[in-house]
Amino acid sequence: MEIDFATLPPREAYSFLVTSIMPRPIAWVSTISSAGRTNLAPFSFFQGVTANPPTLLIIPVNHRDGRKKDTVRNIEETGEFVVNVVPYGLAEQMNATAALLPSDESEFEKYSVGSAPSTRVKPPRVAASPIAFECGVHQIVPVGEGPLAAHVVLGRIRYAHVADAVLGPDGLPDPGKLDLVGRLGGELYTRTTDRFPLKRPDR
Amino acid sequence: MEIDFATLPPREAYSFLVTSIMPRPIAWVSTISSAGRTNLAPFSFFQGVTANPPTLLIIPVNHRDGRKKDTVRNIEETGEFVVNVVPYGLAEQMNATAALLPSDESEFEKYSVGSAPSTRVKPPRVAASPIAFECGVHQIVPVGEGPLAAHVVLGRIRYAHVADAVLGPDGLPDPGKLDLVGRLGGELYTRTTDRFPLKRPDR
Repeated sequence: MEIDFATLPPREAYSFLVTSIMPRPIAWVSTISSAGRTNLAPFSFFQGVTANPPTLLIIPVNHRDGRKKDTVRNIEETGEFVVNVVPYGLAEQMNATAALLPSDESEFEKYSVGSAPSTRVKPPRVAASPIAFECGVHQIVPVGEGPLAAHVVLGRIRYAHVADAVLGPDGLPDPGKLDLVGRLGGELYTRTTDRFPLKRPDR
Repeated sequence: MEIDFATLPPREAYSFLVTSIMPRPIAWVSTISSAGRTNLAPFSFFQGVTANPPTLLIIPVNHRDGRKKDTVRNIEETGEFVVNVVPYGLAEQMNATAALLPSDESEFEKYSVGSAPSTRVKPPRVAASPIAFECGVHQIVPVGEGPLAAHVVLGRIRYAHVADAVLGPDGLPDPGKLDLVGRLGGELYTRTTDRFPLKRPDR
């Protein structure tokens, strides 16, 4: 099959993108509005960027009616967000927070997600998440137009909370202990249980 | 464990990022220099961005000596690149192309990776990859400084080649038929074989 993207409707292009670019890591992002209302939502357009200085990105896509996600609005208002990672044991709760709530309702309260205070930023973190990155916004790059337009939100990582139980003997997170899930297309997710090593070539 | 990123050396921050943000999709990126020399290299800082217009990003991180990757240099010179996806059957060959070759040697030739012509751009695609996205550069956002600094390369997707054998009955790529691999930390990868569904909440 050949696809000319110049003639593909955005909804179809979106379906094709999310079934082709995978597995995607999941950022469960907590924010707070300037009025103090917390928000929690998952995003699978999420990546590391650089370690010098430590930076990651999330890419919330606008609602179908063209409105910005609460996450983006809150980050614009306060400049801060927390990225919580999602192990298999939290996947159902994470998925619940993808529901569209009115802006004045908090997913933390509605779905009984336990929160814990952050150290350097105002938004709380997810208490049960084994790794939480506290971030300050570095740059927001708007991309595209209309219903599925996106904001590439670059965040500088200030501080991280890490559960000791997920650390390996080298002091780094161990993939088997972390047991993170990744996003595939449609309603499918993948576990990271079927692992294999490939020796890095000489470089 | 608590980590203050303001005091963490970049090498250690990098190790922590790649063991925490996962599973990461893999872009096997082909480019061509203005002199006509092809290049092929894998990147796991890779994501979709928006479908309106269809856009993806790759984030090559500079070499340890601070030099830009050939991939970035070629994209700056020609404005074009192809993202090839990586199923389990191509993982070893993909990993081989992560070796650091002199700029005048092509990974396609050195590692006998079969190429096929692209339709809308000059860089060839990987013939055996089941999905290849032909992209024109939209924007390059430099982030950070020094050895591990990065370039966020936003590409507009012009055209895609898709192997019919990986399509499901809905006309979209089927994750079981695609059998893509994801990147974890260190020398570990994950298959996408251990899948589970989560019903999308009402929204």
